[in-house]
Amino acid sequence: MMPTSEVGNASDAYVPVYSSSEVLEKLQEKWNSGKKQPYPAMYSSIIGGITLDPALMVIPIDDHMVHRGHGVFDTAMIVDGYLYELDTHLDRFLRSASNAKISSPFPRSTLRNILIQLTAASHCKKGSLRYWLSVGPGDFLLSPAGCPTPAFYAVVIDVDFSQCREGVKVVTSTIPMKAPQFATMKNVNYLPNVLAKMEAEEKDAFASIWIDDKGNIAEGPNINVALISKEKELLLPFFDKILSGCTAKRLLALAPKLVEQGILKSVTTRDITVDQAKNSAEMMYVGSGLPILPIIEWDGQPVGDGRVGELTLALSDLLWEDMTAGPETQRLCVPYV
Amino acid sequence: MMPTSEVGNASDAYVPVYSSSEVLEKLQEKWNSGKKQPYPAMYSSIIGGITLDPALMVIPIDDHMVHRGHGVFDTAMIVDGYLYELDTHLDRFLRSASNAKISSPFPRSTLRNILIQLTAASHCKKGSLRYWLSVGPGDFLLSPAGCPTPAFYAVVIDVDFSQCREGVKVVTSTIPMKAPQFATMKNVNYLPNVLAKMEAEEKDAFASIWIDDKGNIAEGPNINVALISKEKELLLPFFDKILSGCTAKRLLALAPKLVEQGILKSVTTRDITVDQAKNSAEMMYVGSGLPILPIIEWDGQPVGDGRVGELTLALSDLLWEDMTAGPETQRLCVPYV
Repeated sequence: MMPTSEVGNASDAYVPVYSSSEVLEKLQEKWNSGKKQPYPAMYSSIIGGITLDPALMVIPIDDHMVHRGHGVFDTAMIVDGYLYELDTHLDRFLRSASNAKISSPFPRSTLRNILIQLTAASHCKKGSLRYWLSVGPGDFLLSPAGCPTPAFYAVVIDVDFSQCREGVKVVTSTIPMKAPQFATMKNVNYLPNVLAKMEAEEKDAFASIWIDDKGNIAEGPNINVALISKEKELLLPFFDKILSGCTAKRLLALAPKLVEQGILKSVTTRDITVDQAKNSAEMMYVGSGLPILPIIEWDGQPVGDGRVGELTLALSDLLWEDMTAGPETQRLCVPYV
Repeated sequence: MMPTSEVGNASDAYVPVYSSSEVLEKLQEKWNSGKKQPYPAMYSSIIGGITLDPALMVIPIDDHMVHRGHGVFDTAMIVDGYLYELDTHLDRFLRSASNAKISSPFPRSTLRNILIQLTAASHCKKGSLRYWLSVGPGDFLLSPAGCPTPAFYAVVIDVDFSQCREGVKVVTSTIPMKAPQFATMKNVNYLPNVLAKMEAEEKDAFASIWIDDKGNIAEGPNINVALISKEKELLLPFFDKILSGCTAKRLLALAPKLVEQGILKSVTTRDITVDQAKNSAEMMYVGSGLPILPIIEWDGQPVGDGRVGELTLALSDLLWEDMTAGPETQRLCVPYV
């Protein structure tokens, strides 16, 4: 490191030029506080392997995903040492990539193998596995023509989640929705989603709900919305303008059990107007980390009787049971060493 | 590194777990081919200094800009050892950050000082300086509440640019435009822009033009559009739904000189319908790296007489002169050591 000159005005302060080993030290400094690191392992196709060093869980700044948002992602939950619905998420991941014109550096089976080995190497039994495909590093231009090799990244994140039984407040989002072409592919252009979430938090709500240009309910900022009508119908919006949620689809597959038992009247995907939604008996968010989060207040008005609904909890139990003890087709046993 | 097991099926191949020093070696491998590296220097607030090692020009994967696109950027050209319009670009950069709810880790004067020292350390006399503000690394969640410290990154990119005198072909984009709230702030959610550029390249065009929902011309994928009517009016669209281009604004400030000289009739910002645009005498892209790029064909039809226009070249000369020999208010002499 070159000597630092002390100057009175911070804006004129000398900016040090670090050697490679100094850069590595600086990156590692922030993780040396002794606190438990929340990401036990990362895979990067740039290095062709796994790192357990959080300081080196990095991506080249010239990757097209970093500076142009040209990347897609997906997640799978790690539940008691099992990967839940990995194949469903992986299928959506590759559909997103295709829609974003991103090819994969490896065939699907290799991506899947890497994700399983990464989870095993992480020793994490409860958390989430997040992964990205990008056109890769290149020349900082808008066109990906200068990005020769696509990149694959994956991180295991320790998360101590449990079944949500408390209800939350929501607000209608004033942030513009993305065009259907972009809302239906899971890409990293989430600034509208971030601002929608921040808007809700500023209003002491958990999250928001988007209403589409036809006046129908759409989705939350990174989560689907479902409701139960006063006639005990489970209703979800069509997936034509919103992300096709893997957990929402699993809910649609499992909920008919409650119809057979006479608890629900029907399970339907259709357009739902704001008025219909505001007159529902129960509402909920549906997403992979929850799996169901009851909604008890919307724009300051109670949903139904303003309490967590019984049918919402019945659906939550159904999904939670599937996540924690469901069939082997949905759950992959991680081969920890 | 753990031993690699050789297996017949690549999809079951052992994925190595690397030590920290091995990761660094792997990152450096791709730059060891002896070719000239295109990015001579990077600043990162994560390390609090500058690196000249391209392998370490990285960003933490948990930075909110990487996985949620919650980052803004801007560029300034380095022209013969001078930074062109740095302050104008820096002002827009901070406006973008404010609109994206991103604070800066440093006051404006410190950001400016870092950018100047980075350029000096790069020894680059011709290229571009690109910089980003992000809410910084955090916990991978959608809300930035878990991102305690915003981050500032900057890279110097060697680019051998020269005044563009050849005309290009363009096509009308079929990719949906971003909502005005997002089109007017320069953030990294550029997937629509990337796909618009790729669409044009697939049609053997240089880039595309977006038409807004009122049928007025808007902008190119990362570049403004201007035209000259048959009455010799210079016309640019309003900046209410598109990025307020620094070079386009400089053009608006300089072009009245050509009106005084009787070369142009007027300089106007207004709504321009597609029909008006398609009947123009000359058309051009306007952007910081060009500064003017003549457009000679649009959707297979010639613009004007299908040749590079004289007034387009006169405007190009005006901006090129300003970039290379303009007043000190526009050009900052870089204090190379």
